[in-house]
Parts: sequence; structure tokens; C-alpha cells
Amino acid sequence: MNLVDGVLKGHVRDIARLISVVENELPEATNAMQEIFPHTGNAYTVGFTGPPGAGKSTLVDKVTLHLCQQGRKIGIVAIDPSSPFSGGAILGDRIRMRDVITEKDVFIRSLSTRGSMGGLSRAAGDIAKILDASGKDFVLIETVGVGQDEVDIFKTADTSVLVLMPGAGDDIQSIKAGIMEIADIFVVNKADREGSDGLVTSIRQMLDMNPKPGPWRPPIVKTVATHNEGIEELFSAIEEHRGFLARTGSLVARRKERIRAEIIRLVERRVAKIIQTQIRQNGRFEELVEKVVAREDDPYSCMERIVGPLERE
Amino acid sequence: MNLVDGVLKGHVRDIARLISVVENELPEATNAMQEIFPHTGNAYTVGFTGPPGAGKSTLVDKVTLHLCQQGRKIGIVAIDPSSPFSGGAILGDRIRMRDVITEKDVFIRSLSTRGSMGGLSRAAGDIAKILDASGKDFVLIETVGVGQDEVDIFKTADTSVLVLMPGAGDDIQSIKAGIMEIADIFVVNKADREGSDGLVTSIRQMLDMNPKPGPWRPPIVKTVATHNEGIEELFSAIEEHRGFLARTGSLVARRKERIRAEIIRLVERRVAKIIQTQIRQNGRFEELVEKVVAREDDPYSCMERIVGPLERE
Repeated sequence: MNLVDGVLKGHVRDIARLISVVENELPEATNAMQEIFPHTGNAYTVGFTGPPGAGKSTLVDKVTLHLCQQGRKIGIVAIDPSSPFSGGAILGDRIRMRDVITEKDVFIRSLSTRGSMGGLSRAAGDIAKILDASGKDFVLIETVGVGQDEVDIFKTADTSVLVLMPGAGDDIQSIKAGIMEIADIFVVNKADREGSDGLVTSIRQMLDMNPKPGPWRPPIVKTVATHNEGIEELFSAIEEHRGFLARTGSLVARRKERIRAEIIRLVERRVAKIIQTQIRQNGRFEELVEKVVAREDDPYSCMERIVGPLERE
Repeated sequence: MNLVDGVLKGHVRDIARLISVVENELPEATNAMQEIFPHTGNAYTVGFTGPPGAGKSTLVDKVTLHLCQQGRKIGIVAIDPSSPFSGGAILGDRIRMRDVITEKDVFIRSLSTRGSMGGLSRAAGDIAKILDASGKDFVLIETVGVGQDEVDIFKTADTSVLVLMPGAGDDIQSIKAGIMEIADIFVVNKADREGSDGLVTSIRQMLDMNPKPGPWRPPIVKTVATHNEGIEELFSAIEEHRGFLARTGSLVARRKERIRAEIIRLVERRVAKIIQTQIRQNGRFEELVEKVVAREDDPYSCMERIVGPLERE
């Protein structure tokens, strides 16, 4: 049987195999993703991000358990820049209540930044699509909120959850500006620790300072993930945001903008490859480089010389 | 007097002002960098990277002091992804021996990832060029070895120093694969801690496993930066690597490849902007997007439809 057919039927091994194909950019990846695409758009994606140590994994695990108990099927894409491991940890040791959960219900894929240099957000997006097409009701995407890659990934979710914790002092300051602005829900995890009310106040003040507040006011949910506290409230907030997006037509608009951005990214990537090949094959480019090396020309003027003719066309 | 003239004369305020111009991508930035470029290529650049907490800042400070005592002029570009601050900390509270050092000798610029979304490596490269043109003998670039940006920045140095420390367990595993492979010198900092010999052994084993070792075998230097131990040895290793690069013609080759890569990056960036503008202005693009939204087409085929005509030209 075809690999894609297996994925569409939700067969765990085929899902894992196709993900490897896509992650390693094997030649058959593009065709497979073309076949997968028409079957996407059914899963609801939720992104979780935050500084290291905020308890994102535990929170995602508890949300997953909560959803499983309601009979929903879950896919998880966990991106850990510090992890040396990338691969198909099916359940792994993350979800502890294995008696409750089967591989049919939850599929976890970890992605490390090691090895997937630069292509992390593409890989994460493709994996999310595969899980979506395989029949998951929710795809949860977990990232550390540090690099540009993470911001890009965070942007692909329907609902974006920013996880913070008290006591890390300048937690808020340390998060990339762009992430604060696109969070739909704030979670103050480890809320049994000192300083959690202060953190809630800081977030609220920051939201109040927003010069152009949208129609959705991001709620702040307090959780203690390790004790399963606040998980239902968090899930209610997610459902409420989902309802808001559906009611206002924003879900369709968001997903459309995402598709637009994805096509542009694909075009840029392909054009960059064409440029690299053509430039490096072109003898004249080496002449230009020699002049820059000799400081007779500079990189900026050299770029203009290359791009100029293109622009005038 | 012209800002660039002031930079070339090493005037501290003009350096700081031009850096701000470049960092904020003000309209005059490109022209200024074109004027700066012919005066670059004299400073020797050393990149320092490693996981958070490895003691990179202290190490860079001690190397700076060592170089200042020899009468050399130093520029430092410090990139801290977790810092909310970006700006012209001239000396700041980093270099402690202010009586020994004047602003004329050392210029420090911190860059945070906040605010400079995506353009961090470009900004770092331009700042390094400004410091170079201003007459510094050495430009030291300090980054946390996490994201793709950091790898890109690390690649722009003449000598790349990877700073690790014992006791962080999977320190080595947690560093991006690409960084291990391009390090010219390994530093085991905090070498007075337990486990430093084990870490040296691990690095050595990893170097032995390199399937295609180059003519340069990266040395491993033990330091205790806080006690100023091993700093001279580290600097000797840097000088030795510099000598090796000069002797073998690799310095010229490296810098040429860097210029080549920079031009290609500038071309890609400009072309990406042209594509974005043209695509978004084109009514036909919206039609294509609608089809993808309706799942009648997929992003990959859509990209082919856009790029195909370009490739055939």
C-alpha cells in the first residue's frame, strides 16, 4: 500500500515513515506532501511557547491527557533546540499514563534544531500537516521562544499559547517582542510559586499598554501543570478563542494568510536556489567577487549590479 | 564632519552613531556601509560561542584585557538573545579594570535579538565592519550557540572559538552540530570544576571521529576565566591558528568565500523583497491562493506555477 494512503488511514508506522521522509528532505517528499495537502485543514492547531523551564512539556502532556479523556486524537510536534535527539519518540517517556493512552490516540514527534539547520519551521509545518491529514483532532506544537524559527512556527498555529512562570525575574523581557504580540492566551504556570500574582499583573499591564488592541483580549490562565491544576481552564480558554475565531471569520482569514505566506516562502526558497546555482556558475560573478576582495568594489554595489538588470525587466 | 570620516578616525561617538544608523536600517545605512567597506579587512575577527553559562563574557573580557596590555585596540560585538537591551554599552559594567582601559582602546556593542527580527547576522556583520574600519586590531564577536543566526555569525569570524564547561552534562550534545564542525579552537572554561578532564577527553574523541579531518587540528585549551587562568594559552592558540591560516593561504580563501556568501545573501534578500512586492500586487496570485484554500491546489504545485516561467527564461 502507498505510504500516503497509510497516513490517511492513521497507521502509526506510515505516519512515522512519512515524517522521516519529509524531515530528511528525501526526493519523494514533495510529491507526498502534494498528496497530503488536500486532506489537511481539519485539525485544530495550538502552539505552546515560552522560555526554557516554564514547564511547557508538562503542560502539553496534561492538555493532551485532558483531550484524550474526551476521546479526541492528538498529534504533538515538540521542538527542542537543546535536544540532541530528533526522531520518532512515539509516546516516549513524556506522556506518563500509558494505560489510558494508545499510540492511536497520541502521536508525538520531537524535532531538534541539530541537523535541520535553517529548515526547522518548514519541517515542523510539514509534520503538522501530516498529523492533520492522519486524522488527529488537535495538533499541538511546542517550541522554546528564542529564535526566529520559533516565532515562524508559533505563527502557524490557530491558537498561540505563551507559557511563563513566576520567579524567573525578567521572564517577560526575555521573550522575543514578536511573540508577546501574537500570543492569544497567556499561561502563568507553576502558579503555586511566589510571584505568580505579580506576573499576572505585569502581563495585564503590558496588555493594557498595547497601542492597538484587537477585538480579542488575551486571557491569562494560572496553572500548576504538575498537579493538573488549571488545565480545564486553559482548555476552556483555547475553546473560547477557537469560537471567537470561527464567529468572526478570523480562522478562515488566518489560515488563508498562512497559506499565502507559505507559498511565498516556497517561492523564495526555490528562487534562492536558482540564484545560488546561476550565480556560482556564472564566470562574471567571480570577477565581481575579486573586485570586492580587492576593495575596488563593495558587496552592496555588487548586489545592485546583479539585481539591477532583473528589476528593470 | 561626515559621520563615516569620524568613524575612520576612530571617534567613539561617531562609531556609536553609525552603528545605530545601521542597526535601525535607516535610509542612509547602505551608502555609509558602501563608504566603510574599502577600509575594512584590517582587523582580525575572533568568534566566541557556546551554551549559556559557559562564561563567554568573562572569557572575552579577559582576552580583551590581555590584548589591551599589549597595546592593541579591540571592538566587541556581544549578541545576547535573552537580553532585552540592545544598544551602545560603551565599556558598560563588563570590563572591570576601567583604570587600565579607555574608550579609545575598547568599544563594546551589545545586540539583542529583540527588535532585530531576522536581521541579526546582517547587523552583527555590519557592526564588525564598522569597528574594523574604525581602526580596531581585533574584533571579538560573542554569541550564544543556539539558533541559525548564531551559526551564521560564527561563520563570519577568522578564528572560531567554542566555549564549553564541565558539569553541564550534555553540553556537547546540546550545541548545534554545525557549530562543532566549524570550531577552530575548543575552550574548556571553568576548568577547576569536576569533570573538566572528562570533557577534554570527550572533545578529543569527537575530533578523532571526524571522518574528514582537515590540516588544522583544533586545540583544546583549559581556562578559568574568572581567575585569569589559561588566557595567554588561549591567545597563543588564536595566534597559532592565525599563523596557520596565513601560511596556507586559507585566510584569503576564507575571507573571499565570506564575501561571496555575503553578496549572495544580499542578492537573495533583495530578490525576496521584489518577489513579495510583485506577488502581492499581482491579482492572479490571489486566485491561486483561493484555489489552495479550497484544497483544489496545493502550495507546492502553486509555487511551481509561479516559479516555472522564471526558470524557463
